[in-house]
Amino acid sequence: MASKKISMAVIKRLPRYHRFLDYLLELGIKRVSSKELSTRMGITASQIRQDLNCFGGFGQQGYGYNVESLFSEIGNILGINKTFYAIIIGAGNMGRALANYGNFDKRGFNIIGVFDVNPEVIGKKINNMEVMSLNNLDEFILQNKVDIAVLCIPYKETASIADRVAKLGVKGLWNFSPMDLKIPYDVVVENVHLSDSLMVLGYKMNDRFER
Amino acid sequence: MASKKISMAVIKRLPRYHRFLDYLLELGIKRVSSKELSTRMGITASQIRQDLNCFGGFGQQGYGYNVESLFSEIGNILGINKTFYAIIIGAGNMGRALANYGNFDKRGFNIIGVFDVNPEVIGKKINNMEVMSLNNLDEFILQNKVDIAVLCIPYKETASIADRVAKLGVKGLWNFSPMDLKIPYDVVVENVHLSDSLMVLGYKMNDRFER
Repeated sequence: MASKKISMAVIKRLPRYHRFLDYLLELGIKRVSSKELSTRMGITASQIRQDLNCFGGFGQQGYGYNVESLFSEIGNILGINKTFYAIIIGAGNMGRALANYGNFDKRGFNIIGVFDVNPEVIGKKINNMEVMSLNNLDEFILQNKVDIAVLCIPYKETASIADRVAKLGVKGLWNFSPMDLKIPYDVVVENVHLSDSLMVLGYKMNDRFER
Repeated sequence: MASKKISMAVIKRLPRYHRFLDYLLELGIKRVSSKELSTRMGITASQIRQDLNCFGGFGQQGYGYNVESLFSEIGNILGINKTFYAIIIGAGNMGRALANYGNFDKRGFNIIGVFDVNPEVIGKKINNMEVMSLNNLDEFILQNKVDIAVLCIPYKETASIADRVAKLGVKGLWNFSPMDLKIPYDVVVENVHLSDSLMVLGYKMNDRFER
């Protein structure tokens, strides 16, 4: 499998290329040079050539890259052609937003269930899915193929819920809770901490503009 | 200003300490050793001592850190005691979620306006704020103190909106659009790309479990 040889640093840049190429496709642009990619994306042209060469590249001297094949090749490497089934745990603001967000579907991530503990929320519909009680979580995971649990829950619940779903065979955690998850299971975790990003923004603004 | 000397690498870790200390305070825990921080946070004890020493530290041999003073000192460095006024541009799923998310308030970020172009959304209330028309954006920024614009808009709108608010004096952009913003103004930008994180999660799962 060719993608095995690609370093994680390159992998982390691939979604960025993918987003930009998606936009070019939307505009009907068929080819793009590494120089154009560089100007528009703020990555050096040599870095771009190096990144894209990692998986065979598609650039031709004087022609550039074919936008569509580059887009689909990057999608293949990222595994977008594969389907993941995900559940959202916690139907607060973030959980609801993610459940409603259509853009994940087109990247192969299907949300098949939403769970909460709040009796006022259980049974309500979000994006045509009825919010289920957390009491039914284990049963649901055992009866359905669940690859990813999206955690939108408070700090104190995070470790035990992560533990619980991992033991039931969930292999990926997309974690929006304030806790940085490191669990001793064979699970892949991506932590997303929105307020960290906001605090760093605030710090940079204070620092730069001496507010 | 002491914080000027702290490196960006340390600054980026501070929100993480802040979140964890917030949790300890919630539990009523008054002091914590670097070893405990290390075990719970997955950062080495020596890294923690080094990080916290950057701003004078508060650790005492055999006593550890005073949770409350460390929490408030980190908050000061991050500028949480200062108030930022933010507007949200784009009242789609992400914009709505952020408008409803109470946690930013307690970090000093006040959302004072939400804008959209969709006539079906304009005039509707989100978290007690009436969604305004994008036609009124310039007027609103000129008449109110707006520090940060939160961009929850499509790729093709991002550059022009960023340009427009920056020219009106907005100093910070928290960018959730698919575009990686690099604008030639005196503005601080934090890009958040949720689908990138999801795609990296998918890649790691494919790679690790050979799905």
